[in-house]
Amino acid sequence: MPLISMPEPDPDILARSPQILAALRAALPADALVTDPSETRAYDCDALTAYRCAPLAVALPRTTEEVAAVMRVCGDHGVPVIPRGAGTSLAGGALPTTDSVVIGAMRLREVLEIDLENRFIRVQSGITNLSVSAALAPHGFFYAPDPSSQLACTIAGNVAMNSGGAHCLKYGVTTHNLMGVRIVLASGEVVELGGPEPGAAGLDLLGLVCGSEGQLGLVTEATLKIIPKPEGARPMLIGFDTAEAAGECVARIIRSGLLPAAIEYMDELCLRAVESFAKAGYPACAAVLIVEVLGSQAEIDDQIAQIGAIAAELAPVEMRSSGCDDETAAIWKGRKAAFGAMGRLGDYLCLDGTVPVSKLPITLKRIGELSREHGLEVANVFHAGDGNMHPLILFNANAPGELERAEAFGADILRFCVEVGGCLTGEHGVGVEKRDLMTSQFAPDDLAIQMEVKDVFDPDWLLNPAKVFPLDVSRARRDRKGARS
Amino acid sequence: MPLISMPEPDPDILARSPQILAALRAALPADALVTDPSETRAYDCDALTAYRCAPLAVALPRTTEEVAAVMRVCGDHGVPVIPRGAGTSLAGGALPTTDSVVIGAMRLREVLEIDLENRFIRVQSGITNLSVSAALAPHGFFYAPDPSSQLACTIAGNVAMNSGGAHCLKYGVTTHNLMGVRIVLASGEVVELGGPEPGAAGLDLLGLVCGSEGQLGLVTEATLKIIPKPEGARPMLIGFDTAEAAGECVARIIRSGLLPAAIEYMDELCLRAVESFAKAGYPACAAVLIVEVLGSQAEIDDQIAQIGAIAAELAPVEMRSSGCDDETAAIWKGRKAAFGAMGRLGDYLCLDGTVPVSKLPITLKRIGELSREHGLEVANVFHAGDGNMHPLILFNANAPGELERAEAFGADILRFCVEVGGCLTGEHGVGVEKRDLMTSQFAPDDLAIQMEVKDVFDPDWLLNPAKVFPLDVSRARRDRKGARS
Repeated sequence: MPLISMPEPDPDILARSPQILAALRAALPADALVTDPSETRAYDCDALTAYRCAPLAVALPRTTEEVAAVMRVCGDHGVPVIPRGAGTSLAGGALPTTDSVVIGAMRLREVLEIDLENRFIRVQSGITNLSVSAALAPHGFFYAPDPSSQLACTIAGNVAMNSGGAHCLKYGVTTHNLMGVRIVLASGEVVELGGPEPGAAGLDLLGLVCGSEGQLGLVTEATLKIIPKPEGARPMLIGFDTAEAAGECVARIIRSGLLPAAIEYMDELCLRAVESFAKAGYPACAAVLIVEVLGSQAEIDDQIAQIGAIAAELAPVEMRSSGCDDETAAIWKGRKAAFGAMGRLGDYLCLDGTVPVSKLPITLKRIGELSREHGLEVANVFHAGDGNMHPLILFNANAPGELERAEAFGADILRFCVEVGGCLTGEHGVGVEKRDLMTSQFAPDDLAIQMEVKDVFDPDWLLNPAKVFPLDVSRARRDRKGARS
Repeated sequence: MPLISMPEPDPDILARSPQILAALRAALPADALVTDPSETRAYDCDALTAYRCAPLAVALPRTTEEVAAVMRVCGDHGVPVIPRGAGTSLAGGALPTTDSVVIGAMRLREVLEIDLENRFIRVQSGITNLSVSAALAPHGFFYAPDPSSQLACTIAGNVAMNSGGAHCLKYGVTTHNLMGVRIVLASGEVVELGGPEPGAAGLDLLGLVCGSEGQLGLVTEATLKIIPKPEGARPMLIGFDTAEAAGECVARIIRSGLLPAAIEYMDELCLRAVESFAKAGYPACAAVLIVEVLGSQAEIDDQIAQIGAIAAELAPVEMRSSGCDDETAAIWKGRKAAFGAMGRLGDYLCLDGTVPVSKLPITLKRIGELSREHGLEVANVFHAGDGNMHPLILFNANAPGELERAEAFGADILRFCVEVGGCLTGEHGVGVEKRDLMTSQFAPDDLAIQMEVKDVFDPDWLLNPAKVFPLDVSRARRDRKGARS
């Protein structure tokens, strides 16, 4: 029995399901609605696979109008709606409830407009992250945020979770690259927020929607900032025999004023797993950093020299920068295979806390202590340059009680991140996973304001239920409101 | 009689003013409250000087706690609150009403923390924009947004208006450089939003507060992202004999994938004014661009060469890049003096619309037509790289009816900006100036959502009244609500 509880389905909705499904059928083309339990089962979880629950139905609309039609049916019948991109959420951000309708964005995948002069691309939201950059590549541009799941994950999910990626140290996360959205509200109303132009009059609702995890509406189109591809990129691999030296190297690079595009960190356990899986030729040591710089050749040479000088003071066991495309691929190969490699060691829980860069060493130390206390191994592979940690807690899902222990361990790590001045989530979102930890990050009044803002967009709380806000907090609030009215 | 109307003061508040002032006196140190009409008059306007109205009192707190105390008194007595930074708003964003209390941020001017390793500075919000970069200069860092008024304007005002500046083409505007705020809500409650760490769980209320023009609370502290100073900067001056060629040059630079730090545009009328005032040695022609690039020497050389090649195809009448610090100062001298120089020609209204870069030529043409229709001269001096236009409409404030004509002309320009896909405001905010034009940018439902979000933070609508939202819209809404309750 996992630690995170989901609400019981509403028996009244289940009883009315024939009418609800009939209304959905009337609103959508036949092939845009999935109701057969053997097929809805494919949507019963996202990448947080420990939690599963098949929905009443899955809608797969092709247009904003179809999304709005589903929203109206669900609103009329009081049915919860689960927005879903590609289902790659590691935080259970797209976990259905038995009484809900999933709206999947995957058929909304058109490129609508590329405007080089005004530097934007407008897409339907179900397009994958990598397809956006692929569409831009012939023009010499790219879209900056690059989550590890970019081959599969959608812009809809990226906007919902304010996703980052290895290169967000230089280019920022989704909110820094999002210029506008078309969003369907719970009422079925379609609203345009922002647009290709800088400048926004009135309240910045676009910024509010980005990272709102499907709590405020369903984004069907997005206008994204595009960036010219830099002339070149060169990664450098630096191995250290202590985690402290690697952490110190990150801190010194950041403090120096250099701004690499990426600083990735892999610890010993991760390195062993990666080597036996991907044979990337990484050194056997306590920690490896991959530091990538971008720019013109002269700029790259200059930055690599400066980073090398900083690292050399910390007695690295290995240090090499790429001399050609093949070497670049080799340096990145292991990092890109890290999650797959870890999966071969067993089940794992991938966390996503952030800490100030200066707190990386103490946080790594504390994670080691907690690992011993909880009796579970942990690997650390993460975006070090901006303090976005991804501890991977290894456990055996078939051993009774291990998932619960892993979750308790993870919660301890995330609470520590908050204690040292960090945040529960860097890029994966709160979802169901961190929902009940929100009270460690936010005071009751802070959470209350967030919930009141949700009321404005989704007065009946039908959108993505049981995510983001602690169940006991939102229930107590609903009961108080019910008592008053 | 100007076109923009302000609401009548609440006679009940005026009648109760002795009790209100007594309560404020009890809440603040004696020197932190200004009530003498001869002194409150100094706060009767901001840089939109056509509108003036002295408040009941001016509070000049030194701490967040004092701000909260004033907010509580005003809340208890139902008194409107006008947040004020340095009063440099060109949109009337800090215009008082007779029945209001101004809270000035100018004594909140401490640097609280500089953290190079985690790349942030934490300041009290009344510090001037330039003082922030001055505090960082010895460490080799700077704060990127640089409004023209940076010598005077405060971070409080920058956050309220989401200010930009000449260099925001490369570095983004305030919202891209703001990491956290401490904010006093209308209730007097003090809330921390965001912080030095990337990543934010739950709804992004920080993004919502940035640019909210004092409608949601009063920011007393801000955590700002800091950026290493580039190795060098070099501006290039390019003169053209038609506005079209200058506009085309901007479009080609942006389309090429180059990202200069700034592309500034000055038209013929502006150039004449600047030359007779600052003697900057600008050519006498239809339009001058100043394009500034940043980076290492090699990078600067490379970019300047590419920009030169692009410009050369458009037959410039003059083109020179700076060879030394003195030449750099000379190139910028005229641009920096432009607003002062225009002031010598008479009164002017400085507008702030944005358009897609590709629409610059058609917008300049339309502004010329409107100038002839309204019979008023207009100069164009603006941030061309991101389409942020600043038409300066010349008029004689002492000639009856000229202000009204200038305002009508300005409104026509801004409506045209919206028509071609732009926005009413790039960096000055809506304030009172563009309040009644908001309906040309937003549908009634969009405005309704913004107003409901304001309700969450400021249920009694005491904060910065008669700004941002059209008076008739907000009044009609209040009347409907009143009728229902």
